[in-house]
Amino acid sequence: MIRLFVPFDLLAEAPVALDPDQSRYLAQVMRRGPGDEVLLFNGRDGEWRAAITAVTKRAVQLRLVGEERAQAFGPDLDLVVALVKRARLEVIVEKAAELGARRVRPVVTERTNADTARLPRLRAIATEAAEQTGRLDVPELVEPMRLDALLAGWEPGRRLLFCDEAGDALPVLQALAGQEAGPWAILIGPEGGFSPDERARLRAQPYAVAASLGPRILRADTAAISALTLWQAALGDWRP
Amino acid sequence: MIRLFVPFDLLAEAPVALDPDQSRYLAQVMRRGPGDEVLLFNGRDGEWRAAITAVTKRAVQLRLVGEERAQAFGPDLDLVVALVKRARLEVIVEKAAELGARRVRPVVTERTNADTARLPRLRAIATEAAEQTGRLDVPELVEPMRLDALLAGWEPGRRLLFCDEAGDALPVLQALAGQEAGPWAILIGPEGGFSPDERARLRAQPYAVAASLGPRILRADTAAISALTLWQAALGDWRP
Repeated sequence: MIRLFVPFDLLAEAPVALDPDQSRYLAQVMRRGPGDEVLLFNGRDGEWRAAITAVTKRAVQLRLVGEERAQAFGPDLDLVVALVKRARLEVIVEKAAELGARRVRPVVTERTNADTARLPRLRAIATEAAEQTGRLDVPELVEPMRLDALLAGWEPGRRLLFCDEAGDALPVLQALAGQEAGPWAILIGPEGGFSPDERARLRAQPYAVAASLGPRILRADTAAISALTLWQAALGDWRP
Repeated sequence: MIRLFVPFDLLAEAPVALDPDQSRYLAQVMRRGPGDEVLLFNGRDGEWRAAITAVTKRAVQLRLVGEERAQAFGPDLDLVVALVKRARLEVIVEKAAELGARRVRPVVTERTNADTARLPRLRAIATEAAEQTGRLDVPELVEPMRLDALLAGWEPGRRLLFCDEAGDALPVLQALAGQEAGPWAILIGPEGGFSPDERARLRAQPYAVAASLGPRILRADTAAISALTLWQAALGDWRP
């Protein structure tokens, strides 16, 4: 069934109307009409079944017919990722949504050669991926900041899995063995790697765990997907 | 340093010449000239440092100056993947190369809606990814076949990790716990999933291990990357 992320509250029996883009998608692209049902979620009120009551020129109107799932969130996991080329950053945001990250924080590192991200586009990608993957929230896209500023203001209690391709770190599963769940972040560097200063600074943080992603050189998108997967399997909601 | 996969033998001191495409890439795109060094590998003779001796209109000529690494192969791992949309299949082939699969076997399943793959293009993608990721071989791209034919002629001794989104299978790490390394394959279905007949048949195979990839719906490329990552971490060359 089609799932849509909507901004409005979801309350039993309430009539609701979709915005022009979603109305066009539902009525014209997907050819849904009165009586057809869709699923709606807003990141706060769970997932609701809704039936189309009318399709006008301006909007698709629906009535909420029942709550399918109560609101729930995945693990409190941030993906901190160096700004990489636009196409690869878009893939990373899509995959972060599928793999259950709660936030994506683009950062500027010494070897990053981009310093802007098109956040509205990235937010649209995150929303569409969240709709498709079945989660009940959309990952937050945070304004890019410098890595050193992020580390200087690091949130107390949040641990950091730091994927260190250059070093002799343990593989991720071994590095995470014995670690506790709770707030975590995964840090993926730029394709040129971290600078020696950045590596030294990261390795000196008491909240940071360095880990290796195998014997081959990975592109940034592959590294992000692999690290998210292993973290979910070790400490997240892929555990039995 | 630039790495190139070449078809010819690599023998100490031997003069070699690159084909027109690689010659153009090296001389014109990357602007390398006499005295510059590159790395060559052919999947048989290890990795060699080679110095450019001449750049002519027809070819870049080199002399092999030393073996950097002896030939080695990753685990004997096949990725069996349903034919999905072209762009996603290309991503899957790139990632299979980065994540150390030895072969990619596209298959046609009941719910596959494509039945052709552009193998020359997929082979070029696999080669470029192998060059970038640092491996000493290129994954083999096998001609597509039907899933039922592949199962009917299954290679004795090869185990199969079957990613079963619809079932109640254990998560991958738990499903692989206690399994032995050796020849394995990973099977990724089409975005529409396997048919009930296919699932029943797969689950009945003594060599097959069903596993789940977490609580969210994954696109085929994400599922392939996650499964390859977890297999490598559990039984492959990402182990300590």
